[in-house]
Amino acid sequence: MRYLRFSDQCRDVLRGTVVVEDRVVHGYPRIGRILALGRGLDEQFSAPFWAEEKVDGYNVRICRPGSRTIAITRGGYICPFSTDRIADFIDPGIFDEQPDLVICAELAGPDNPYVESCPPFIDSDIRLYVFDLMRLDQPGFVSHAEKYRSIEHYGLPAVHCVGRFTTADLGEIRDTLRRFNEEGREGLVFKEDTPQRPCTKYVTSNSSIADIRSTAENILELPPEYFTSRILRLALFLREQRLEHSSGLDRQLGAAFLDGLLAAITQFEQNGKAQHRFRLRFRQRENALALLAHLGDVARHRARITQRDLRREGERWILEYDRTYPSLNTLLGNLLKGGLMYD
Amino acid sequence: MRYLRFSDQCRDVLRGTVVVEDRVVHGYPRIGRILALGRGLDEQFSAPFWAEEKVDGYNVRICRPGSRTIAITRGGYICPFSTDRIADFIDPGIFDEQPDLVICAELAGPDNPYVESCPPFIDSDIRLYVFDLMRLDQPGFVSHAEKYRSIEHYGLPAVHCVGRFTTADLGEIRDTLRRFNEEGREGLVFKEDTPQRPCTKYVTSNSSIADIRSTAENILELPPEYFTSRILRLALFLREQRLEHSSGLDRQLGAAFLDGLLAAITQFEQNGKAQHRFRLRFRQRENALALLAHLGDVARHRARITQRDLRREGERWILEYDRTYPSLNTLLGNLLKGGLMYD
Repeated sequence: MRYLRFSDQCRDVLRGTVVVEDRVVHGYPRIGRILALGRGLDEQFSAPFWAEEKVDGYNVRICRPGSRTIAITRGGYICPFSTDRIADFIDPGIFDEQPDLVICAELAGPDNPYVESCPPFIDSDIRLYVFDLMRLDQPGFVSHAEKYRSIEHYGLPAVHCVGRFTTADLGEIRDTLRRFNEEGREGLVFKEDTPQRPCTKYVTSNSSIADIRSTAENILELPPEYFTSRILRLALFLREQRLEHSSGLDRQLGAAFLDGLLAAITQFEQNGKAQHRFRLRFRQRENALALLAHLGDVARHRARITQRDLRREGERWILEYDRTYPSLNTLLGNLLKGGLMYD
Repeated sequence: MRYLRFSDQCRDVLRGTVVVEDRVVHGYPRIGRILALGRGLDEQFSAPFWAEEKVDGYNVRICRPGSRTIAITRGGYICPFSTDRIADFIDPGIFDEQPDLVICAELAGPDNPYVESCPPFIDSDIRLYVFDLMRLDQPGFVSHAEKYRSIEHYGLPAVHCVGRFTTADLGEIRDTLRRFNEEGREGLVFKEDTPQRPCTKYVTSNSSIADIRSTAENILELPPEYFTSRILRLALFLREQRLEHSSGLDRQLGAAFLDGLLAAITQFEQNGKAQHRFRLRFRQRENALALLAHLGDVARHRARITQRDLRREGERWILEYDRTYPSLNTLLGNLLKGGLMYD
């Protein structure tokens, strides 16, 4: 399918905006993060706001701009995997009734091609969580009231909406976040209940640790602020929650850094290569092949994608492939052979 | 004092090489690091080698190229602090007898202007540890035998020389490193006992953790490989020593990241600023003022140096100053006020 993708913001057109069959699917806007909850909510909002659970997955926009229902990633790619699985979560008939609908949702779970961390309440495959609705050719969102009417009417799976709050409800919001943290949940997204709808997000310390934990294989590719911003978030979360800087948390953070890297080193020593095995479920074989081609294109020299298996299991096609980061393997190879490192 | 400084390598002339009064003080060469001990020693050495303790401080070259005995940092600056303190550790009379001598040494201890980590066996001020000798106008080092004769003859304080080994002694070297790690020591430098003298170094996991622990204030200034290389060293040290990836070590690593940052945040909340207080001892007042001027020049926009006190105590001048990193303070100010962060 031919389409035009805005790989970067261009004037008012957001990054990830896509033009398909002469219809515009606007980009999903970036949401700024607050690191101090109370002051942040005060600063960002001047009206009541909704608090919705932030789910740790990847963002897609699902729509039917032409004859086909597609799922578009944040960056504006039509994702063969996400597109393949739409019908598992949403009755495509919704687009017969509402042809200009754009469903903004998170796909989360251990068996996805993009993110290696996932919510603790999903133990296999993926699930879909709707959090916003847009319209084709229109920037901005459908109102919260209309969104919840549609979610209910069409039985869409939605993110957990914690409630409508004002900044006076800080205590309750903080308690929710403490509970989320204990349950291993990622955090909250706050959306002001006004037409302009300013938004912000706030994550738990658990989320920062999970991000660090999932970095082992591409640790050499990360920008400097990857670690520093997460450690800063973690420190400010502890301060916000008046949590003790406990040895348990220190241990979790240390283990997040070391577990994956030690596993990668062991894998390298045993198999001559550190790599990550993916196992995804598809409805259609052609989408599995299209995903492999897409990942190969996007990864370019940074990562290598190697198909391991593609077989039928009942109604599904199971795709298995490995992703290898040559940079880590080259470095480990050099170091374990006794090579020098200058720094 | 006017002098020419090579701020970068230029053909065969090493970075940090200095020309003073028409004499050349050659740069101290970079030493490559091995991350796999056994394979590394095998790969780097084809003859017996000396193992010397690596001390966690900063490298100086002490010499008398003209009428004055000076201490030059790795980067080629004549350091007013180190120069001031030479006579506390070395009888300058050595340069009457050997006018072309260049003493290469580590200055280590909690009260120094450059490094925030220090060996556990120095509880205040600084100490000096000689590890190599060079000659003015000549690149390369004096032989190990001659070095140790001079150290003994002049009573120079030297780094601990563990011994002369071959690659067959791996077990003993590994045991020494395990003991060093338990004692909080940094590691070993290996120097082949041949005229070409290839060198390499290997550090304990304790050293990697100490480095991370000392980053809190300038965390925003660090290049991406700062953390990744130290975590990789740590993981490979554990593997080399067949040490369990213990929860104690995880805890230490996590605490190394969080302790300093939480302290900086608390300091910011209490005083409106996160900064580090330095307290240095000088023999001469003018050197204290020269150090402040030098630090101000070198730090430029990255850090701000503010004098707090300069007073006489007995035979010494005590200089106190604060170093503030505006980047961290600006970010904390914005975040604690409730500002947004996009990432």
